[in-house]
Amino acid sequence: MAVQMKGAEVSASMKEALQAEHAALRAKGIDPKLAIVRIGARGDDLAYERGALKRFGGLGFTVEVYEFPEDIEQRRLECEFKDINDNPSVHGILLFRPLPKHLDGEALRQAIDPRKDVDGMSPLSAAKVFAGEDDGFPPCTPGAVMEMLEHYKVELKGKNVTIVGRSMVVGRPLAMLMLAKHATVTICHTRTVDMPAVCRRADVLVAAAGKAGMIRADCVTDKSIVVDVGINVDAEGKLCGDVDFGAVEPVVSMISPVPGGVGAVTTSVLAKNVLKAARLQLQ
Amino acid sequence: MAVQMKGAEVSASMKEALQAEHAALRAKGIDPKLAIVRIGARGDDLAYERGALKRFGGLGFTVEVYEFPEDIEQRRLECEFKDINDNPSVHGILLFRPLPKHLDGEALRQAIDPRKDVDGMSPLSAAKVFAGEDDGFPPCTPGAVMEMLEHYKVELKGKNVTIVGRSMVVGRPLAMLMLAKHATVTICHTRTVDMPAVCRRADVLVAAAGKAGMIRADCVTDKSIVVDVGINVDAEGKLCGDVDFGAVEPVVSMISPVPGGVGAVTTSVLAKNVLKAARLQLQ
Repeated sequence: MAVQMKGAEVSASMKEALQAEHAALRAKGIDPKLAIVRIGARGDDLAYERGALKRFGGLGFTVEVYEFPEDIEQRRLECEFKDINDNPSVHGILLFRPLPKHLDGEALRQAIDPRKDVDGMSPLSAAKVFAGEDDGFPPCTPGAVMEMLEHYKVELKGKNVTIVGRSMVVGRPLAMLMLAKHATVTICHTRTVDMPAVCRRADVLVAAAGKAGMIRADCVTDKSIVVDVGINVDAEGKLCGDVDFGAVEPVVSMISPVPGGVGAVTTSVLAKNVLKAARLQLQ
Repeated sequence: MAVQMKGAEVSASMKEALQAEHAALRAKGIDPKLAIVRIGARGDDLAYERGALKRFGGLGFTVEVYEFPEDIEQRRLECEFKDINDNPSVHGILLFRPLPKHLDGEALRQAIDPRKDVDGMSPLSAAKVFAGEDDGFPPCTPGAVMEMLEHYKVELKGKNVTIVGRSMVVGRPLAMLMLAKHATVTICHTRTVDMPAVCRRADVLVAAAGKAGMIRADCVTDKSIVVDVGINVDAEGKLCGDVDFGAVEPVVSMISPVPGGVGAVTTSVLAKNVLKAARLQLQ
C-alpha cells in the first residue's frame, strides 16, 4: 500500500516556520498583508478565497479582499488596481483570473509590481522562474508540489521527473523548479507518443494535464512517486484528480490524493510568498 | 554513414526568403537595421561580429557597429545604449556579453526595447519564449537548431527530444521551442544519472553542455539524430563540439558537425530576427 502524501500534513508542518517568520517581520513593524482582487463572484474564485481566508486566519496573517462588480470598466479597474499595487501596506496581490470577457487581464498582468506578484502571474515573475532565479514567484500550485515533495523527503537530485502537462500555471514553471533541484526533467503532453512508457520511467510523476483519470496503472511501477495536481469533477459530480487513484494507488510507492493533496498546500504557499514579498519590499 | 546536417546549406536555403521579406519591407520604406553594440575588443566578440557583418553583407542588410572603449563608465554606456534603443532607424540590437567586469549588464538587459531584442537577452523575451508566445525572440542559437531541423525535415511532433544542458542561452529556451513543436522534451545536465541511457532514448539529441566530446557512442543508436551546439577548443587547439564526432558519426542516422553546423546558422537567424523586429515595429 502506498504512502499517502497529505496536503493537510504538509500545511501543518509549514505553519510553525511561517508564524516565526511572520513574528520576525512584525517585530520590524511590518504587517505582511495579502490583497485579494476579485471581479464578480465566480464559484471557483469564491471557493479559493474562502480557503485563503481560512488559512490566513489560522496563521494570524492579514488579508484584505477587494471586490469589484462584474461589469466594472477596464479603465476604472486599472485605476483601482494601481492604487492597490502602489499601496505600501499591501505586500502581496492575488488577482483571480480569468477576468470577465470584456476586460483585458494582460494590462494588469504587465502592471503588477513584481515584488508583490505572489501568485507569479507577471512576465517578469515567469522570466525569473525560467532562469532559475530564486527571488521570483512561481505560481502557488507548482510551489505546493515542491513543498509536498520536500515534506515527504523525496530526493530530487539526479532523479527522473516526468511532468504531464505544459501549462504556464503548472507544467512549465514546475519543470524549472525541478531543474533547480537538479532533477532530470521530462515534459509530456497530449501529443506525447506512448505516454505510459514515458511515465513508467519516472521516479517522480506529476500529473497536471487537467484530464480526469488519465494516469492509469500502466503509467506507473512499484517505485513510482505520484503527485496529482488535477482538479476535475467526475461523472457523478465528485472532485477527482488526473490520476485514476483506485487503480494506481495499490501499485505505487507514494501518492497524493485528490482532494486532500496538493490543493490543500497552495494557500500555505501563498502565505509563504506573502512573507517573501514583504521581505523583498524591506530591502 | 550518417547524413551530415550542414549549417551552410541551411543558411543558403534561408537566403531567398530573407531577401524577399527584406525587399517587401524596403518597398514600405523600411531599411531593416541591426545595431551591434560592442565594448572593448574581445576575440570571441570580434569573430562573431565578422561573421555577422559577412552574413548581413551577403544578404544586402544594413548593420551598424557601435564600439565603446573597454573602460567606458556605466552611466555613459547606459546613455549611449538608450540612444541606440530609442533610435527609430535601429530595428534590432545585439549586445555582446559578458560586459567588462566593472559594468552592470543587467541594467541594459532590463532596458532593451523587447521589440528590438533580436538575440533574446531581456526578461520579457525570456517570458515570451517560456510561455510559447511567438512574438518574442529566443536567443539565436536555439533558433538555429530549430532552423536546422526544419531544413532537414526532421519531424518533431510526438518525438522524444533530449537536450543536454540547461543554460538560458541554449538549453532552456530550446526546450520551450521543442514543446511548441509538440515534442516530448527531456532536459539533462551534469547531475543526470546514467546520461547515456537517457540520451539513447532520444529520437533527437541536442548537445549543449559546453564540454568537449561528452556525447560518446554509448549515448546514441542507429536511429539518433544528433545536433551539436557545443563550441569548444580541444587539446590540440582545434574547434570541436560536445559530441565525440569520430565515435558517434558512424553510429547515428543524422548529425551536425562542429565547425560547420549550428554555428553557421546563427547569423542567418539573427538576420531573420531583425526582419521580424522591423515588422513588429511597423505595427
